[in-house]
Amino acid sequence: MKTEGRNAVLELLGTDKNIDKILMEKGGKGSLSVIFAEARKRGVRVQYAEKAALDKESETGRHQGVIAFSTDYEYFEVEDIIADKRSEKGGFAILCDGVEDVHNLGSILRVAECAGADGVIITKAGCAPVNESVIRISAGAAEHIKVARVSNLRTAIDKLKKSGYWVYGLEAGEEDIYAQDFSGNVALVIGGEDCGVRKVTRSLCDKIVALPLNGKVNSLNASVALGIAAYEVLRQRR
Amino acid sequence: MKTEGRNAVLELLGTDKNIDKILMEKGGKGSLSVIFAEARKRGVRVQYAEKAALDKESETGRHQGVIAFSTDYEYFEVEDIIADKRSEKGGFAILCDGVEDVHNLGSILRVAECAGADGVIITKAGCAPVNESVIRISAGAAEHIKVARVSNLRTAIDKLKKSGYWVYGLEAGEEDIYAQDFSGNVALVIGGEDCGVRKVTRSLCDKIVALPLNGKVNSLNASVALGIAAYEVLRQRR
Repeated sequence: MKTEGRNAVLELLGTDKNIDKILMEKGGKGSLSVIFAEARKRGVRVQYAEKAALDKESETGRHQGVIAFSTDYEYFEVEDIIADKRSEKGGFAILCDGVEDVHNLGSILRVAECAGADGVIITKAGCAPVNESVIRISAGAAEHIKVARVSNLRTAIDKLKKSGYWVYGLEAGEEDIYAQDFSGNVALVIGGEDCGVRKVTRSLCDKIVALPLNGKVNSLNASVALGIAAYEVLRQRR
Repeated sequence: MKTEGRNAVLELLGTDKNIDKILMEKGGKGSLSVIFAEARKRGVRVQYAEKAALDKESETGRHQGVIAFSTDYEYFEVEDIIADKRSEKGGFAILCDGVEDVHNLGSILRVAECAGADGVIITKAGCAPVNESVIRISAGAAEHIKVARVSNLRTAIDKLKKSGYWVYGLEAGEEDIYAQDFSGNVALVIGGEDCGVRKVTRSLCDKIVALPLNGKVNSLNASVALGIAAYEVLRQRR
């Protein structure tokens, strides 16, 4: 959904609606700086663009240099994902660290739902939001799997650890994923296409586990890698 | 690579170069019908379009109603895939049945390379060719994994069976993939996004095996499903 014009966007920022991003005119003046400050406070991404780009996005023709993109998607809390376990063998959470690509996120939601995970945790900055593209690409999974959108992955990981989860970062490393015991509460952290799980996030994981790679190409697509790892969790729990 | 103009395209059809498709002007006259017949004979897809679309694709401005798209990609033969086994535990071939989406095919090549498969078999009709998009999406895998492009999946499956391969169709069904023994020569057949492995292909498989699906969404993306299955083969062989 698009919200256009300065007052309308400022009002939207005052609600608790999910704002994917705000498109703002480059070099725009006046109350745009107030909107920028409010957006910053709420952790909403602001993207600068030429007036022509805003004109193109505008449905009303009266954008006044600012358009907000929001979805009606209702996020869950990390606590909901912890509380509501689908398997009696243990909890199963998936965390996304810098998954910016909507195709990857949509596909990750699909994998999470099919592999029987309890939910997916994404970040407000650095991850794509659950927007219309993601919902479409998820092929219906977005309606079933719980998604929590957090400001801070560290806080989410702390909550999981306190609830007895073992947190595994999926990344090149020494530990072989097929040598792990995934009974109990498991959280898998998957990184973005370009740089994988970030260093700071890696340091928060209990273990870094790797998929064996037999070829000359050194990585798999994020959602494929997650699919393989999540199904190893599922396989062990059956 | 684009080849434009009637004579040039006819000449191209006389070579053994890999032609992805031919774009032809709707309602075009004269020798276009000869080109259509030649393309048909060679199993090259002809797509009709308005003159404006050809004008847009044309690099020379002299397309005369026909543009052929070809790649320099050199395909292998099914025999090459059978002959050259990467694992001493047995051969490992992947067959694509109606994988039209370039993203899926690129991702399948990446999975095949990472999981240590010997090659991927695609069909001339019904599958995307290894074009520039596929090569790009494969993230380098297309340069390493052998791809054979066949007219007929039945002939390819017959060759594999005669060489002692067990052919598994990946599709909803009774048999659980985790109950299979993937030692020996294995061929996995993966279907397209829309309709999965076709009925006729299913009847050629030794077994139809399914991934467990724990959610309310009833299928995974083709390349993710193949990734999970191919890594189960790899896991059992380590």
